[in-house]
Amino acid sequence: MKLHEAPSPNARRVHIFMSELGIECERVAVDIRAAENLSAEFLAKNPGGRVPVLELDDGTFIGESVAICRYLDSIAANSAAPSMFGHDGVSAAQIEMWQRRVEFNFLLEVAGAFRNITAFFKDRETCVKEWGEVCAERAPKALAVFDAQLAQHEYLAGEHFSIADITLGISIDFAKMVKVVELPELPNLTRWKTQIDARASFSAQ
Amino acid sequence: MKLHEAPSPNARRVHIFMSELGIECERVAVDIRAAENLSAEFLAKNPGGRVPVLELDDGTFIGESVAICRYLDSIAANSAAPSMFGHDGVSAAQIEMWQRRVEFNFLLEVAGAFRNITAFFKDRETCVKEWGEVCAERAPKALAVFDAQLAQHEYLAGEHFSIADITLGISIDFAKMVKVVELPELPNLTRWKTQIDARASFSAQ
Repeated sequence: MKLHEAPSPNARRVHIFMSELGIECERVAVDIRAAENLSAEFLAKNPGGRVPVLELDDGTFIGESVAICRYLDSIAANSAAPSMFGHDGVSAAQIEMWQRRVEFNFLLEVAGAFRNITAFFKDRETCVKEWGEVCAERAPKALAVFDAQLAQHEYLAGEHFSIADITLGISIDFAKMVKVVELPELPNLTRWKTQIDARASFSAQ
Repeated sequence: MKLHEAPSPNARRVHIFMSELGIECERVAVDIRAAENLSAEFLAKNPGGRVPVLELDDGTFIGESVAICRYLDSIAANSAAPSMFGHDGVSAAQIEMWQRRVEFNFLLEVAGAFRNITAFFKDRETCVKEWGEVCAERAPKALAVFDAQLAQHEYLAGEHFSIADITLGISIDFAKMVKVVELPELPNLTRWKTQIDARASFSAQ
């Protein structure tokens, strides 16, 4: 098993997930600034040119970081902790719900603000600064919803650590790094962030 | 169990999924044009004000259509067909991968084009026409990737019908309805679309 990757919030999500499960594998660096991910060789692995991509020993490629995590979860069935995707129908649905709220209402807005305001990928996409500003204004609003949930529950999707916590953690760190979104101080979110940052997995490289 | 809903691609995704599983439940109409989904009463059910939301008999609310489908899948364990979310680790990962490619690379682009070009929700969000045009230009490109996959496989994620097929089907129909995206004629996609449109579930209301 090999992970083809470049530094990004999505690669970090996979690293944290693997560390939580105690899984290691070979890593292959892809140079996205040099557009290596858009080469014919790479597009044969993942038609959208996205990273990370997990290559299984039989030559199967799995793209999309959440899909990679689902595969890793399936091979880690011996783990003592409840699955980070849920342990029954209701918990699986609630984790999916929170995970999607983080992705669609926060991570995508931060990414939209970053890409359109800084024009980081202007060599390969059209950037619309005004749209980046709309995204930057919307992103913090989602955090208030997460803060209210974390006032009632230890973790984002309830009483167990889940992939929704990983996604929110990497998204907030990404937002702090790219500095295009103003992040409000919210007490429950701060309590939760301190707690998850203390997990060994959050220092995984 | 009650489904709070308004006409939308996401509600249709749940209807098709339920029909495939032979599940029925009470439906409650939410008037989103009158902003009923933004009322305090509704926001207590789903803090983002989105529809559909599934209300379980114990008062639990599950928002996000894919999360609702996961829950429905868990209560339909007697179904003879393979789960529409996959029957093992690799198939679950591949379905998740294709599902995400449809959502992020096609459905979100169609929705971005629709909302920003037509300004349908201009009473509640900032619309940037230039961004809508970027989305409209990007959306068809994803279809070429799906067409190439459908040249090799009967269904989008392989040899079994899955939620990725439902998501692509409702997304294409939505794109046809809102008419802001030019849809190329692609032979494998056309073959597949004819095939899934013939399923009884795709006529479910």
